[in-house]
Amino acid sequence: MTATLDSLPDGSVTSPRGFSAAAAHAGLKADGAPDVALLVSATSCATAGVFTRNAVRAAPVLYDADLLSERPGRVRAVAMNARVANACTGAAGLDAARAMAQAAEQAAGLPPRTALVLSTGVIGVPLPVAPVADGLRQAAARLSAEGGADAARAIMTTDTRPKHCAVRLDTPSGAITVGGIAKGAGMIHPDLATLLAVLTTDAVAEPATLAPLLHRVADRTFNAISVDGDTSTNDTVLLLANGTSGVDPARDGALWTQFEAAVQQVARTLALAIVADGEGATKVLEIHVVGGTSEKAAREIGRAIARSTLVKTAIYGADPNWGRVLAAAGAAGVPLTVDRLTLQAAEGDEWLTLATGGATANPDLGRARSVFQQKTIRLRLDLGVGRAEAVVWTCDLTPDYVRINADYTS
Amino acid sequence: MTATLDSLPDGSVTSPRGFSAAAAHAGLKADGAPDVALLVSATSCATAGVFTRNAVRAAPVLYDADLLSERPGRVRAVAMNARVANACTGAAGLDAARAMAQAAEQAAGLPPRTALVLSTGVIGVPLPVAPVADGLRQAAARLSAEGGADAARAIMTTDTRPKHCAVRLDTPSGAITVGGIAKGAGMIHPDLATLLAVLTTDAVAEPATLAPLLHRVADRTFNAISVDGDTSTNDTVLLLANGTSGVDPARDGALWTQFEAAVQQVARTLALAIVADGEGATKVLEIHVVGGTSEKAAREIGRAIARSTLVKTAIYGADPNWGRVLAAAGAAGVPLTVDRLTLQAAEGDEWLTLATGGATANPDLGRARSVFQQKTIRLRLDLGVGRAEAVVWTCDLTPDYVRINADYTS
Repeated sequence: MTATLDSLPDGSVTSPRGFSAAAAHAGLKADGAPDVALLVSATSCATAGVFTRNAVRAAPVLYDADLLSERPGRVRAVAMNARVANACTGAAGLDAARAMAQAAEQAAGLPPRTALVLSTGVIGVPLPVAPVADGLRQAAARLSAEGGADAARAIMTTDTRPKHCAVRLDTPSGAITVGGIAKGAGMIHPDLATLLAVLTTDAVAEPATLAPLLHRVADRTFNAISVDGDTSTNDTVLLLANGTSGVDPARDGALWTQFEAAVQQVARTLALAIVADGEGATKVLEIHVVGGTSEKAAREIGRAIARSTLVKTAIYGADPNWGRVLAAAGAAGVPLTVDRLTLQAAEGDEWLTLATGGATANPDLGRARSVFQQKTIRLRLDLGVGRAEAVVWTCDLTPDYVRINADYTS
Repeated sequence: MTATLDSLPDGSVTSPRGFSAAAAHAGLKADGAPDVALLVSATSCATAGVFTRNAVRAAPVLYDADLLSERPGRVRAVAMNARVANACTGAAGLDAARAMAQAAEQAAGLPPRTALVLSTGVIGVPLPVAPVADGLRQAAARLSAEGGADAARAIMTTDTRPKHCAVRLDTPSGAITVGGIAKGAGMIHPDLATLLAVLTTDAVAEPATLAPLLHRVADRTFNAISVDGDTSTNDTVLLLANGTSGVDPARDGALWTQFEAAVQQVARTLALAIVADGEGATKVLEIHVVGGTSEKAAREIGRAIARSTLVKTAIYGADPNWGRVLAAAGAAGVPLTVDRLTLQAAEGDEWLTLATGGATANPDLGRARSVFQQKTIRLRLDLGVGRAEAVVWTCDLTPDYVRINADYTS
């Protein structure tokens, strides 16, 4: 069974059939921009979620994790807001999350306990429930199959661009569409850049198979940019499958693999858009770690490199200080055979070897400099001990990042 | 047995009897500043070392760890250089470290295998052995009991100030002096700010008791500022005891405790000087984590807060965004009972409660703002689950940090 995968121009969460969305201004953003969004499915969705591993979990995360553990097959809507994270808000915060979900359910005429909630913004500030509920009612009144991009715009915080995309998978049994929206910004890692993503599909699916698929996809995409794992209080990735296409990819092993690839392509596109839009970022760094004993070990090493402020400032300064890359790899907490390490940088279609056997390869400094001046820099670190690999992405650390974050609450 | 502890003005590694030092210019620093230093003891020293936990260990670390495992009671000298770290330099780098040690031994007329070596600077560049050896010969020719501060100056990289101090412990059996020099800078943590420190004392000691003492002291001082543990390729803390005072603090349990306190005071003074001189730093943040189940857990949580770029940028911006502190604590990978957390900030002699029960305490925003405008900000996080505590220090993250690190090799 063969299938083809095409990306849809201007796609989003409302590209799959049966989904509608809208945004509204609830008065949270001072400039009058949309700050609340509502996504609704015409039918119940099998839903999976990947949540932050932070020990301090925001109220919406607690609410959603609880609802999904109880009824992962009956989700109808996702209500979202920016500007206030509803984190570190105690029992009152949980009440506010529940009230926000109920407002969405009532506004959209849905049964109780069918709406999930997502919040992003400042921590420790109470969620203003009444304005948010009012915004959700406004959004419910103008839900449309073209509203996905507006929802992406509403959840932006320090993002400079809305992030949305979709792909269509044509199979002999019919077409499946997968779409998504996301917000990120922050330095993406190491810490608290809240990452929210909602993926939708009209495929038929069961929660029990959707959950492991989403975990695998998130590890290779959103978790490959969000170093230190999922450490914001609010990080959430949701995948809703409403079955409207009538195509069940689980009926065929090959088709399921293609379906996972489609979901992964949407997630990867959104993850890369988040990196490229990192706060103050001017450059993207792709780190391909190969030759590892396991994908997990390779990813941990890639993440350690991606979260090194010294690597990130060198990338900003176009400084071919590759020793910082090996030193950051060594700090990953993963055993390394130092004299097996080879570090290379992409120079067009060629690879410039920077270090070999764990020591300098005495690269030509002029070539090394021009490689580090590229807008997208690709590094390849061969651990020399196995066949597993992982790719991790990050952006540079710039003076603008500091400026953006020095005064965010006020 | 009572003892008194006094700090010595302008003290250093040469304050304890029997130590001499000098610096020289070996041509490594372009501005002609001293870049090589030599410390010599008149008699053999019991010596302990704490080395980086980075899997990529620089040649001087490998050389010193090997020498100390073989003969920790026969050290006579420490040879140091700035500007080239001799890291990621392979077998040639180990040869260079050995040649540097031998040059120091020959220049100072010492037996073979009695000199340790310390290097700091750029990674992946070969150590220029001939100029360094020449510099060590110059230094050996002018060793003096006043040379400790010059040695501190020679090992500076992006440090803006030399770091040195000493204390005298007067005991009924006689006086013991403990001195030290250090270099740090970098953002101190999370990653690769190489930290070098040499502590000296004229106390009588055995390597077997000195080593655990140095580990305890380093955990409470240098490792409490160098978050992510000891992750540079070159981080090294050495403690040399030459016994010249004739006072053996191990003969009396109370005196040993006082001796450890003296070593800790020197290490703490140097560690705090490193934080205050962090690259581009304008402010210092002290994080006192109390109410933990273990000192280790409390320190891990403190470190997670100290390495959060969002906390550090908020400190720079005088932004009372305390939610970032709780969120960073939650990302430490240590179990937390969120509804037991209390976060306070020092307001003169009072404590302003920012969060209680893991949720906002609705602090007065004007007071919170003025607390975060202080030059030194002190936070107190009560975990509410035990009696163990730890203190961690960090500095703010500023646009200047990015500028300093964007172009360091060239």
